[in-house]
Amino acid sequence: MPHVTPVIRSDAHLAHAGLVELASGVEIPCWESPERAVVIEAALRAEGGFAFEEPSEHGAEAILRVHDADMVDVVENAWTDAAAAGAVDGARSLIADTFLLGPYTERMQVGDPPTARHLRLGARCFDTATPIVAGTAGAARVAVDVALSTAERALAGEPLAYGLCRPPGHHAAGAMFGGYCYFNNAAIVAQWLIDQGAARRIAIVDIDYHHGNGTQQIFWERGDVLYVSLHADPMRAYPYFSGNASETGSGDGAGLTRNWPLPARTVFDEYATALSEALDLVAAFDADGPIVVSAGFDTFERDPIGDLALRTPDYARIGEMIGALGARLIVLQEGGYALDALGANAVALLNGLRQSDEPG
Amino acid sequence: MPHVTPVIRSDAHLAHAGLVELASGVEIPCWESPERAVVIEAALRAEGGFAFEEPSEHGAEAILRVHDADMVDVVENAWTDAAAAGAVDGARSLIADTFLLGPYTERMQVGDPPTARHLRLGARCFDTATPIVAGTAGAARVAVDVALSTAERALAGEPLAYGLCRPPGHHAAGAMFGGYCYFNNAAIVAQWLIDQGAARRIAIVDIDYHHGNGTQQIFWERGDVLYVSLHADPMRAYPYFSGNASETGSGDGAGLTRNWPLPARTVFDEYATALSEALDLVAAFDADGPIVVSAGFDTFERDPIGDLALRTPDYARIGEMIGALGARLIVLQEGGYALDALGANAVALLNGLRQSDEPG
Repeated sequence: MPHVTPVIRSDAHLAHAGLVELASGVEIPCWESPERAVVIEAALRAEGGFAFEEPSEHGAEAILRVHDADMVDVVENAWTDAAAAGAVDGARSLIADTFLLGPYTERMQVGDPPTARHLRLGARCFDTATPIVAGTAGAARVAVDVALSTAERALAGEPLAYGLCRPPGHHAAGAMFGGYCYFNNAAIVAQWLIDQGAARRIAIVDIDYHHGNGTQQIFWERGDVLYVSLHADPMRAYPYFSGNASETGSGDGAGLTRNWPLPARTVFDEYATALSEALDLVAAFDADGPIVVSAGFDTFERDPIGDLALRTPDYARIGEMIGALGARLIVLQEGGYALDALGANAVALLNGLRQSDEPG
Repeated sequence: MPHVTPVIRSDAHLAHAGLVELASGVEIPCWESPERAVVIEAALRAEGGFAFEEPSEHGAEAILRVHDADMVDVVENAWTDAAAAGAVDGARSLIADTFLLGPYTERMQVGDPPTARHLRLGARCFDTATPIVAGTAGAARVAVDVALSTAERALAGEPLAYGLCRPPGHHAAGAMFGGYCYFNNAAIVAQWLIDQGAARRIAIVDIDYHHGNGTQQIFWERGDVLYVSLHADPMRAYPYFSGNASETGSGDGAGLTRNWPLPARTVFDEYATALSEALDLVAAFDADGPIVVSAGFDTFERDPIGDLALRTPDYARIGEMIGALGARLIVLQEGGYALDALGANAVALLNGLRQSDEPG
């Protein structure tokens, strides 16, 4: 009997809905929609060989090991404060309009920011693409529960476990969020595995189209976490301000951040060359816990906000390459916005990843 | 014959038009409109006793004494780069969507940002209220010329000169812009006066509704520039992240920044108490050059984005209080958005300011 892969999922994300974002100042429906998780789950159910499980509650502790308490406070209470102040009338989503750039306080010590959390949203959220609605905080909390429950399945011996996280996480840094992300699911899992004593060294492989600036920032100086990321060159693509090959970590983490910025229309052969280099570093890192995979499908050739050129069968080959490492795998959903192909791409990746489980 | 007050003005600002801004994510016509300067000039012409003059060109040198070269580059070229990339289709104004918050690079050294200046707009602009269109850079440059030409009139002996600057300036900091402001006209004038050897010590009085975070940041550590500001408490009002009474400068500038955050519905008597305190500090500062006044009328009781409660005659009394210092005055236009009262309020302020010129 072929191995059945656990999929941790929840309907809680459905309340993170009705979202709009502002792209260069123009309001559009948010690409990061509930339908994304719905179509992925439907495709996995149709494929078979997956067991669907609800996450268990983990509370805030693991989140606060990675994120600043004030940032968590803003994520969790900005909507409530805005609604109490009548400040969400006319807007379907709460979006910041004033941002605490680095130069704002250059050489200057300022007083406390507003106590109303929607008025200091721009101190903690770095873009206009990460709307907050009434259901956002709950969904973000459950996405972390999904990620941690997925990690628990790996610790219980599963060679592969998939967390259908929504919202995604890899753009959320220690003290700010953005990029459709609120809490950094992958970073929280990596830190939790270490805190549990389940591992001393963890590797994170990020194959989302966008640079995982949050994950990089969180582990920048850490000697116990390797972060490798393949993504669109930030010279042309969100999040613009990080993801260059020159960014390699510092202090104890020197050399343990590695980035492969990719040109537009990158096809699989070129992608595989970069991925091989990244996986060689993972193999050499001597991790002793599961590998955490930040899995995005916005590298797909028809993704509406990406410009790489991967095709559905390529995700199976990517899965095989990662699976060949022979490590237990915690795969967490990040981006991917081509609704008509997301399910097939997820099926392809997961089937590729679990091929190595099958009797040869 | 009563003294005629020079008003430096230009039509160049009219090209900074067709603007939209995003308030909490909702697109609205930009409050900072060309009509603002048009109605002020019309009211001064109707009032009489003003001589209208064009500014002279001053080039970029004085701007670069106050602002980071990369920020100036972004202001001047973001629109061109965006248009060349086809990135302004569908948007009437270029507005950033991704912002380089302080925490983005916390403990992390990143590579160079995108060479395309519209893609690094959010590294230099801190809000979604400061749109860039084809005519923005030219208008911002001429607003500086207006301010510097106004300063020249003061140096030539005028007791009072008024610069009808548009766009305004006081939110533009050394390395970032925002708040309808691109270049900090008042700060550029203060620095230029010192650089010219026209003064060793300069005082700036900011009576705009909003905290002049830019001016404060630029002169935070400077012992030769006093900055006093009366404004809405940032606990409830833009720009949110500065303007508290606890912010008083540091280093050589310790004690030379002073803020009076005001409650909603502040009326003149309360306002005058704070203004007296501020002007006492100005009198004690021993400035030897003209006083620079950042004049906003968004403190008006019916201003659409303010919540203070000053009335038109109050601006005359404010003018008298500032005029009583007996110093030459360089008055530069900042905010004020009640189009039907802006002209009367400007007339009131300027008549109050020049009362001390008149034979007694």
